[in-house]
Amino acid sequence: MAPLRSWFNIPRGSHFSLANIPFGIISTSSSRNPHVAVAIGDHALDLDVFAANNGFSALSTIQPHQTVFSQPLLNAFAALGRPMHSIVRKYIESVFLENTPFPQVLKDNAALQKEALIPLKEVQTHLPFHIGDYTDFYAGLNHAYNVGVLFRGPENALQPNYKHLPVGYHGRASSVVVSGTPIRRPNGQILENPATGKKAPIFSPCRKLDIELELGAFVCRPNKMGEPIPIDEAEESIFGVVLMNDWSARDIQAWEYVPLGPFNAKNFATTISPWVVLMDALEPFRAKGLENDCEILPYLKEKNEKSFYDINLQVDLKTSSGSSTTVTKTSATNLLWSYPQMLTHHTITGCPMQVGDLLGSGTISGLEPSERGSLLEQNENGKTPIKLSGGEERKFLEDGDVVTITGVCGSDEEALVGFGGCVGRIEPALSM
Amino acid sequence: MAPLRSWFNIPRGSHFSLANIPFGIISTSSSRNPHVAVAIGDHALDLDVFAANNGFSALSTIQPHQTVFSQPLLNAFAALGRPMHSIVRKYIESVFLENTPFPQVLKDNAALQKEALIPLKEVQTHLPFHIGDYTDFYAGLNHAYNVGVLFRGPENALQPNYKHLPVGYHGRASSVVVSGTPIRRPNGQILENPATGKKAPIFSPCRKLDIELELGAFVCRPNKMGEPIPIDEAEESIFGVVLMNDWSARDIQAWEYVPLGPFNAKNFATTISPWVVLMDALEPFRAKGLENDCEILPYLKEKNEKSFYDINLQVDLKTSSGSSTTVTKTSATNLLWSYPQMLTHHTITGCPMQVGDLLGSGTISGLEPSERGSLLEQNENGKTPIKLSGGEERKFLEDGDVVTITGVCGSDEEALVGFGGCVGRIEPALSM
Repeated sequence: MAPLRSWFNIPRGSHFSLANIPFGIISTSSSRNPHVAVAIGDHALDLDVFAANNGFSALSTIQPHQTVFSQPLLNAFAALGRPMHSIVRKYIESVFLENTPFPQVLKDNAALQKEALIPLKEVQTHLPFHIGDYTDFYAGLNHAYNVGVLFRGPENALQPNYKHLPVGYHGRASSVVVSGTPIRRPNGQILENPATGKKAPIFSPCRKLDIELELGAFVCRPNKMGEPIPIDEAEESIFGVVLMNDWSARDIQAWEYVPLGPFNAKNFATTISPWVVLMDALEPFRAKGLENDCEILPYLKEKNEKSFYDINLQVDLKTSSGSSTTVTKTSATNLLWSYPQMLTHHTITGCPMQVGDLLGSGTISGLEPSERGSLLEQNENGKTPIKLSGGEERKFLEDGDVVTITGVCGSDEEALVGFGGCVGRIEPALSM
Repeated sequence: MAPLRSWFNIPRGSHFSLANIPFGIISTSSSRNPHVAVAIGDHALDLDVFAANNGFSALSTIQPHQTVFSQPLLNAFAALGRPMHSIVRKYIESVFLENTPFPQVLKDNAALQKEALIPLKEVQTHLPFHIGDYTDFYAGLNHAYNVGVLFRGPENALQPNYKHLPVGYHGRASSVVVSGTPIRRPNGQILENPATGKKAPIFSPCRKLDIELELGAFVCRPNKMGEPIPIDEAEESIFGVVLMNDWSARDIQAWEYVPLGPFNAKNFATTISPWVVLMDALEPFRAKGLENDCEILPYLKEKNEKSFYDINLQVDLKTSSGSSTTVTKTSATNLLWSYPQMLTHHTITGCPMQVGDLLGSGTISGLEPSERGSLLEQNENGKTPIKLSGGEERKFLEDGDVVTITGVCGSDEEALVGFGGCVGRIEPALSM
């Protein structure tokens, strides 16, 4: 399909082509109250300003709901449902088309262009949703296997339940932050030298601070308590996807996690990218995930096996010396369980989902060492340092390191559907 | 100390004596918008009505903040901080004193009494807080030991970390419900006969539906991300306490919980009692908890060892045949870790707490079988049925069973500080 042409200058290679139109929350120096925008090329279209200036005059269905664009969060817009998200996205696309049927709205309206189209470098992005609950799954089969090998050997790497259900756990919603937020190295209890068998912990800054390359999906439709979401309806409940870095303190985790799972090892920060890519934008990039060689129960069986997305993911690590290295390249198809399966399993007990709930995919790793989405896997739990450009090495993250996750679908430089960046810089631990 | 005398008729044996004054959220047939109230004897004092009718005329400090009483949740009131909670509670107490210094407010104001004092049986109670995050700890040493013995034998019953840190995990906030909400038995994946070693699950209604007798505490002071709450300041962050039943699907749990902890086994429902007993009301019942024979790290050391509360807890089970049996009697001192310790540990990584966050204590069990706070412990994972009055037996909960947790401090029938009830009735699973 030929890329859509716009009257607006969308730079080649932009993650935010006309094929994308992701939603986010911005503020600017002249408009300090956060509100809704879309990203288009290297600009944000401020939908609050756009709506207030009759931008939606040709879209009567959204008019009774236009206050959603003045909100400081996407929850109200998301709650309008996927058909409305489609309509609004398509309408904005049409407004930017070279041969737009609505030239008076923006193309021929220099005043509104000036007011509503703001260079991305001049906007501040904010957390896009109020997140009621955040659940982190473990659907990255290769990651689960790699970590299992490190801790239990290859024969017992995967637990017996792993291929029967999407393993997940409840995460900490209050520490989900938007890209760019500094990440303070946590303090906590660690076993200084587990190999000695000494079982008394010390108090220390985390020495094994790690990343986890994940996707996050936002829920846009609630279900009532007691009423599961059937697998065939689950896609209607998913608003869109962001990149996610689920920072992990591996030494704190190793000591604390038995028997109830990770807690302090994860609760200090999870970073997400600011622009939420709608499911409609990802539709052309549907793909199969990893094959499940186990017979799964009927409630998890999907009609469409292509319920994963071919997103090219990359992790870059920049040290305080200034050198930058790509440490991971992989694809979001490296998942065993899809978002519909995660959502259906999550609610099979009747657990109520709310608009704005966040679902992490689990760490995404390919088969090769260079495709592994956590440093733990890459360095084999600290055994094999990772070589960085400029001659440095890393086992785990050091203070001053900047981690950037990027993700993009497609290869046509005029029609990319990308996520921008998910960035965090490590700050020193509090001295206590 | 002699009990406080009131001009108002507070029945002997009421949980809501003048020594208590717990806060909650109510609506009535004439005032359907939920708002703030306190419980006093067998009445609720509607603080929205009370405030609107100059009830706080003699308390100038609260006057700029009176809109908090019109809110449908306690978050805004809680956010005013513990000194303000103390002042408001003491003022309400003084209004009800036999020799109240403010007789004009309520004692001599028959019209306001009629409007603001509503029989509890005529009010509907609601979830008292918007719960941002819900964390469940595992501080009940005897419970952790009993469960550990069942699954790993007495030698490995407690994990090496157990006495060094308050083990906890993130729970599901969206399924926390107020007492009286029906509890639907969840469906899920279970291993039909784990003893055979067969590792393929079936889909089934939960067959091991259990209770967990816990306390829940609400947070009233946020901390910034990256800034831990020191142990000596942690009490200032705790608003008050409720009773909690953390319903648990033991068969779903056994299959799913490795390696990331309980998920679907807990996410279908957690019930809390509606009236939040303030920390000030619990102050006279301070007590030591269980002794920790392990040297703990300095960040968890409290100056005052009496940071637990002597609350007499009881669980009653009423079957659909109408027979009722007390299945558990124990004390809330059966905890190894206090709420300040839980809160400090939770935030030692910098995890941000928000007003309304809920912290579960973990299941509270004494040493004797009749003191065990879960059926799993009482029946030794299904081996020994529990005898009920009327000749019935129970391993786990059956449809129609009603579980009621009660808790009360003190023995003077005119000065009890109680929690009322935390009640849930089991409804049949959805047939799927």
